[in-house]
Amino acid sequence: MTMRRKKISVIGGGFTGATTAFLLGQKELGDVVLVDIPQMENPTKGKALDMLEASPVQGFDASIKGTSNYEDTKDSDIVVITAGIARKPGMSRDDLVQTNQKIMKSVTQEIVKYSPSCYIIVLTNPVDAMTYTVYKESGFPKERIIGQSGVLDTARFRTFVAEELNVSVKDVTGFVLGGHGDDMVPLVRYSYAGGIPLETLIPKDRLNAIVERTRKGGGEIVSLLGNGSAYYAPAAALVEMVEAIMKDQKRILPSIAYLEGEYGFDGIYLGVPTILGGRGIEKILELDLTEEEKAALEKSADSVKSVMATLM
Amino acid sequence: MTMRRKKISVIGGGFTGATTAFLLGQKELGDVVLVDIPQMENPTKGKALDMLEASPVQGFDASIKGTSNYEDTKDSDIVVITAGIARKPGMSRDDLVQTNQKIMKSVTQEIVKYSPSCYIIVLTNPVDAMTYTVYKESGFPKERIIGQSGVLDTARFRTFVAEELNVSVKDVTGFVLGGHGDDMVPLVRYSYAGGIPLETLIPKDRLNAIVERTRKGGGEIVSLLGNGSAYYAPAAALVEMVEAIMKDQKRILPSIAYLEGEYGFDGIYLGVPTILGGRGIEKILELDLTEEEKAALEKSADSVKSVMATLM
Amino acid sequence: MTMRRKKISVIGGGFTGATTAFLLGQKELGDVVLVDIPQMENPTKGKALDMLEASPVQGFDASIKGTSNYEDTKDSDIVVITAGIARKPGMSRDDLVQTNQKIMKSVTQEIVKYSPSCYIIVLTNPVDAMTYTVYKESGFPKERIIGQSGVLDTARFRTFVAEELNVSVKDVTGFVLGGHGDDMVPLVRYSYAGGIPLETLIPKDRLNAIVERTRKGGGEIVSLLGNGSAYYAPAAALVEMVEAIMKDQKRILPSIAYLEGEYGFDGIYLGVPTILGGRGIEKILELDLTEEEKAALEKSADSVKSVMATLM
Amino acid sequence: MTMRRKKISVIGGGFTGATTAFLLGQKELGDVVLVDIPQMENPTKGKALDMLEASPVQGFDASIKGTSNYEDTKDSDIVVITAGIARKPGMSRDDLVQTNQKIMKSVTQEIVKYSPSCYIIVLTNPVDAMTYTVYKESGFPKERIIGQSGVLDTARFRTFVAEELNVSVKDVTGFVLGGHGDDMVPLVRYSYAGGIPLETLIPKDRLNAIVERTRKGGGEIVSLLGNGSAYYAPAAALVEMVEAIMKDQKRILPSIAYLEGEYGFDGIYLGVPTILGGRGIEKILELDLTEEEKAALEKSADSVKSVMATLM
Repeated sequence: MTMRRKKISVIGGGFTGATTAFLLGQKELGDVVLVDIPQMENPTKGKALDMLEASPVQGFDASIKGTSNYEDTKDSDIVVITAGIARKPGMSRDDLVQTNQKIMKSVTQEIVKYSPSCYIIVLTNPVDAMTYTVYKESGFPKERIIGQSGVLDTARFRTFVAEELNVSVKDVTGFVLGGHGDDMVPLVRYSYAGGIPLETLIPKDRLNAIVERTRKGGGEIVSLLGNGSAYYAPAAALVEMVEAIMKDQKRILPSIAYLEGEYGFDGIYLGVPTILGGRGIEKILELDLTEEEKAALEKSADSVKSVMATLM
Repeated sequence: MTMRRKKISVIGGGFTGATTAFLLGQKELGDVVLVDIPQMENPTKGKALDMLEASPVQGFDASIKGTSNYEDTKDSDIVVITAGIARKPGMSRDDLVQTNQKIMKSVTQEIVKYSPSCYIIVLTNPVDAMTYTVYKESGFPKERIIGQSGVLDTARFRTFVAEELNVSVKDVTGFVLGGHGDDMVPLVRYSYAGGIPLETLIPKDRLNAIVERTRKGGGEIVSLLGNGSAYYAPAAALVEMVEAIMKDQKRILPSIAYLEGEYGFDGIYLGVPTILGGRGIEKILELDLTEEEKAALEKSADSVKSVMATLM
Repeated sequence: MTMRRKKISVIGGGFTGATTAFLLGQKELGDVVLVDIPQMENPTKGKALDMLEASPVQGFDASIKGTSNYEDTKDSDIVVITAGIARKPGMSRDDLVQTNQKIMKSVTQEIVKYSPSCYIIVLTNPVDAMTYTVYKESGFPKERIIGQSGVLDTARFRTFVAEELNVSVKDVTGFVLGGHGDDMVPLVRYSYAGGIPLETLIPKDRLNAIVERTRKGGGEIVSLLGNGSAYYAPAAALVEMVEAIMKDQKRILPSIAYLEGEYGFDGIYLGVPTILGGRGIEKILELDLTEEEKAALEKSADSVKSVMATLM
Repeated sequence: MTMRRKKISVIGGGFTGATTAFLLGQKELGDVVLVDIPQMENPTKGKALDMLEASPVQGFDASIKGTSNYEDTKDSDIVVITAGIARKPGMSRDDLVQTNQKIMKSVTQEIVKYSPSCYIIVLTNPVDAMTYTVYKESGFPKERIIGQSGVLDTARFRTFVAEELNVSVKDVTGFVLGGHGDDMVPLVRYSYAGGIPLETLIPKDRLNAIVERTRKGGGEIVSLLGNGSAYYAPAAALVEMVEAIMKDQKRILPSIAYLEGEYGFDGIYLGVPTILGGRGIEKILELDLTEEEKAALEKSADSVKSVMATLM
């Protein structure tokens, strides 16, 4: 019985994909393959080599390889999809959806071909519909296809709260349901600092402002950067999900999961609290919602469905 | 007696500076201020915020702040300089030197103004001459002004050797003297895998090829990326030096140090083995060199001097 | 400005003190001095040397020194007190209190003599009264004298809940007020798994059983070990508190703090939620309590007062 | 394909075994089972539970279980043997050997029964002969049965050298061949600080004193403790070997390996430099030795053989 090192492939060698690859290497979660299109092969190889050259100093053992050849992803345990385009000025939302859908389909075919038993985590936007696309295209069981949005949203929320209260981020928790960004359904009553409900620590208007800032958290970074979007926090979020599965940690994390009746929805991917472990999404945790929360989640689901309707 | 968190400023918010800031945050070495010019203020703020938003997930407590205002660097314990331009097509080497010299001077004035007791680590190329410039401009004692090149060069060397032998990077060590890149004086006889001299493990021609690849290690990444240069490994190298000083680790690391008689040189900054600890460069380790090594080091020093001659 | 390594002294070289010293070294929080009485000098030196010999393999830089000479603790930043005796068969509680009180007094005099600006964290039982004793004897401001019990109690609670739910300990939080052990006032309504109130996840009787097991958590280990008491989890708890202060993390942690009006008590040390940072106990967080909780806290405070009454 | 968490069993719940279990948990290398004899079942459970209760604070996810039932070790990936007795006053060496041999045989039968594909690392003294015993009893291929001594010996050597030179332990390497303790064959010429041969940094008599102290390193701790022997550094050494195999790191570490012709020996277990990876001992590195070194190794091997001659 050989102790094979685990293998993780990251599809998309842009900033998020590259940062994800580096953070995975740092944690020695396995060997990493960073994949991009043939035209980007050299830059992808360059980034991977640069990371590898950091490994003796950072003290980690992990092969990090850049490639445009999916054969190199063979027998991956987990695959992370960050590939896809961002919406450009003048591009309709439907165009964006259909372009990324095409990318998801082709990427998924390659993944499935070489790693028929892997888990797939999707970051590409619009992430609910893209996760659904990967699910359908892969033919994999639902627990092995997972979308990321809530870990990132709550990370931002926690950052803003920690700043507001001048306390450690380690002691702040947040909770969201539903879609990413504007569709986010924050459950402030399930969010705490040191276990103390935030509602008792932060004035209502300040808390609302933090929720609003969280919703627009991606846009805030886009607007500051001027060119490009966030990648550190998204990469960190992906890595936490990979680690939870890889080490069978049974973490309670918000995931975009395929719903079959949970929360009253069927046949869609939506952000819900889940247990992430060695069997992927091991459980969806169902909470009693207030009427207001139900309405917000309904709205969020409608938004996902309207995107799904534009899928080809 | 308040336990003040340490403070580290990183000048230059490009890829290397930003990656350095992130790696410093991850290690909770202190609060981090990332500084760039006013025109880049927003992107710098954006990167810093994105990193901060990764902190709850990565589990570290560190303020990371982007700014163009040097006042924010006030009372830094350590300042890292990554600012400066890269050589562009058509630009003479002297132009590069003089442009970066100007940047070093102005940056140093600001650093000294706000943090008169800090340590400064310089990455900007040509690094030996730029470290010298910062030294002169700061008026700081020599042990507090340090240049980085050898940690990066040996990291690359170790990576290539580990790959060649298919062993852990943790067990490979390398050793260089002199300047960065082409001027590097590798001391292969002081380089080992598991303590075994590399010369007995790797055929001479393969070892030469590895040395040659190391010398051109920066160029290899530049050429692969197509646009831009390495930043993961350089950032990791900077962070290792910061950590050695901050935690008074008394690490034996190659540093660009001010020589006053050591190795037969006087009044120049050159890469030599040093002890890095709570008093900066606490000691320069002098080795007996072979005639060949002496000649190579002489050549490397000449090259540094010729750059210094172009300083204004 | 030299970067002096921080210094932490641990008083009491038994299992808890020794484990604390090792965990502090691992985290490179500073140099560690492990102090015991002259008769135990050699074993204490032996443990410290053994730990130091683990450092190259575990990859940390920290001096760990065993001694019986308080001069070695000079200029400590933080001092942790684990010294004291455990109750022996036939010993009255008052005898225990008075013996440990004597030890606290003499230990505190030595600490204060050599480290007049340090922070002191007390573990010795009965911990509320012993922390009070150290406070009085030291003459230090209250924010610099802190007792440990709640971090340990909640660690046990979190362990049992994680086991019950088969989820990661990382996602379970707990909350206690008041004294250690039997006097513990668990605030189950402020305890969560993934942000979800435990009361909605675990049946009431199971939750009660977990609370009860937590209360008796120390006794459970004592009874299993047959000879001696818990030291891994207590040491981990102490280290978390040291780290919070040392790195100015502003963690929200339960501490035994000196109350002057908070929660309606005055002039006693009692377990309450606090913000631990670079100024020690930076803030006591006051919560609205139910009548039942108030009564339990009152009972817990009475118990502390009755021990204090036996102090000489 | 479920991501099963790895499983490591530690046989012997004494200080070394327990510390090993804790360090394994900290690194999240897998779930840990700590096994001792039925009479020690409760203390073993107590230690394991105490460690587990430290996990929420130390931030690791690992089940740590104490038991006296080998069934609980079922399907272990790696098993570490620390069981056995220490030599008592009046006990002949042969008695020690035969008692521990008996323990090794019975322990090995249980290990093999429940984990027929595992790797076994042996610490019990006299370790060369005990590793041989486990090898024979298990019927496992030689690369899966490994003894520990050199990692510990070099850790001690590195500690003493770092202290002598006042440099970081991270930059000191050591090298030993042959048996543990008095039989140790230190290869000082393969030992360095920052890559610089120690012989050029430390006067000959000081270096000899360090070698001598290393040889007697175990005895130094025994004599300081008064009662018991070292466990922090031995545990750290075991954990490094487990990690190397578990993560397929291909570390170059000194191991007690079965020799079939290497270094001129056949059919004995002896300390030699090896590559430890996912297939256990993947390679034995053969070095050219000086006549003096050869003689010392021969003497060390003779000593192992004389112990083997007393095996029943």
